[in-house]
Amino acid sequence: MKSSVIINPRYEETDQMGIIYHGNYFTWFEVARSKFFKDIGYSYRDLESENVILPVIDVGCTYIKPAHYDVDVRVETEIYLFKGVKFGLKYSVFENDTNLLLAHGYTLHGFVDKEMKPINIKKKNKKVFDIISNSFEGVK
Amino acid sequence: MKSSVIINPRYEETDQMGIIYHGNYFTWFEVARSKFFKDIGYSYRDLESENVILPVIDVGCTYIKPAHYDVDVRVETEIYLFKGVKFGLKYSVFENDTNLLLAHGYTLHGFVDKEMKPINIKKKNKKVFDIISNSFEGVK
Amino acid sequence: MKSSVIINPRYEETDQMGIIYHGNYFTWFEVARSKFFKDIGYSYRDLESENVILPVIDVGCTYIKPAHYDVDVRVETEIYLFKGVKFGLKYSVFENDTNLLLAHGYTLHGFVDKEMKPINIKKKNKKVFDIISNSFEGVK
Amino acid sequence: MKSSVIINPRYEETDQMGIIYHGNYFTWFEVARSKFFKDIGYSYRDLESENVILPVIDVGCTYIKPAHYDVDVRVETEIYLFKGVKFGLKYSVFENDTNLLLAHGYTLHGFVDKEMKPINIKKKNKKVFDIISNSFEGVK
Repeated sequence: MKSSVIINPRYEETDQMGIIYHGNYFTWFEVARSKFFKDIGYSYRDLESENVILPVIDVGCTYIKPAHYDVDVRVETEIYLFKGVKFGLKYSVFENDTNLLLAHGYTLHGFVDKEMKPINIKKKNKKVFDIISNSFEGVK
Repeated sequence: MKSSVIINPRYEETDQMGIIYHGNYFTWFEVARSKFFKDIGYSYRDLESENVILPVIDVGCTYIKPAHYDVDVRVETEIYLFKGVKFGLKYSVFENDTNLLLAHGYTLHGFVDKEMKPINIKKKNKKVFDIISNSFEGVK
Repeated sequence: MKSSVIINPRYEETDQMGIIYHGNYFTWFEVARSKFFKDIGYSYRDLESENVILPVIDVGCTYIKPAHYDVDVRVETEIYLFKGVKFGLKYSVFENDTNLLLAHGYTLHGFVDKEMKPINIKKKNKKVFDIISNSFEGVK
Repeated sequence: MKSSVIINPRYEETDQMGIIYHGNYFTWFEVARSKFFKDIGYSYRDLESENVILPVIDVGCTYIKPAHYDVDVRVETEIYLFKGVKFGLKYSVFENDTNLLLAHGYTLHGFVDKEMKPINIKKKNKKVFDIISNSFEGVK
């Protein structure tokens, strides 16, 4: 399953190069991740309220073309890894109108509880495990 | 008592006007506030660990000259209001080398606990009340 | 004329109080301002491309209730001041579902060119002057 | 050559997990990069004023332990790659007091001019090439 979200780059996100500051793509990935969870039927806010937190273990981003203020981007998101204690999403950022690929990246997360202790999501919350599982075609 | 802190403006804080984005001054005020509490002998981190939180009720900032990437600013901070349940700081932002005034502003805070319930700091934490009180010459 | 925009608070915008960091409301005001200009028929991006820039001179915000991650807010925007060289907008932030007022604020802007020299928008760009003028019922 | 900088994590940088938001490490890397250039004798601000810009091509970060508000971190920076048109730095983030490694990452940059056209730094600015070259012991 692929999730998609449109983001309108903010003035605050620009820098004095006249482009979107590179670090902000990770905020966009977070927006895309939030949308991904809604699309599979379980919002990240709901997850947290059930004491399942997804801190970031590893991230990366490759920048191809700059993004600009008020020029809509579209972020497409899908799972690339899903194991009992880890969960990875990859993202492609397109200029929405032209479909030009601007950047692509990934975020790898652990499943932990509010005390930051790792949890096995299959055991801890089978419903969430099944929902994520169903949205992923790869090796689990 | 006046507290002072030097801040080196970050590239991330610039925008495509080539200056520091206006909203970031409130982060600088927070850095200055953090320094202020250390200077009076009670860090904001300690305050929070004792269940005293200072959410913002009201803020303002007047911008005179722009700040720029990697041109040090100095923020000077002092109390302008201190009552049992409220606490206000005012800030002046100078270009450090030239002493040019770039901006001035204020933040007004309530004293609350972690459940966001207002607390009377004089009753709740007399030590903190005294420390803040001693650093303020105005009407209490 | 009143402009309105829905914003979905981002995780990045939260702080360890578990609420949206106060400084981020100025970014939301900017998002609302961007929408305001589109609604009156002249995007801020177009303005900048015609060498009209709107740096911030003065801002303020009053916080009534906290905003939370992934709980939509609606920002309503209208002009409160419009003179040849200055331009002010005021903003009300509501929790979108409940219509609870969370905060209200304002931003005051000058019209300048890319060299940061003040311009009289009526003389410099009559079309923009008229569009803004028509969206404002107050004293000009 | 290894460059080092102390950063005091800001409240604004925290999120509702009670830790520093992962995306902010790239801002810290930028602060460390800025310090790195000063340490080798050529500030990034000077570079930009000579029409040499270093946009980011690729970044990554691995998170080991969370960083917290007002608990100083130390970022150590060194070159891992330097070619005529590309330049890479790697960063280690330590909790300053304990020397605990919190995270490590890298940023890869191109040399471009203000029109975002790639430049060969050896040809364009021999002085900068030599300074960077001298601070790097690896294969050039």
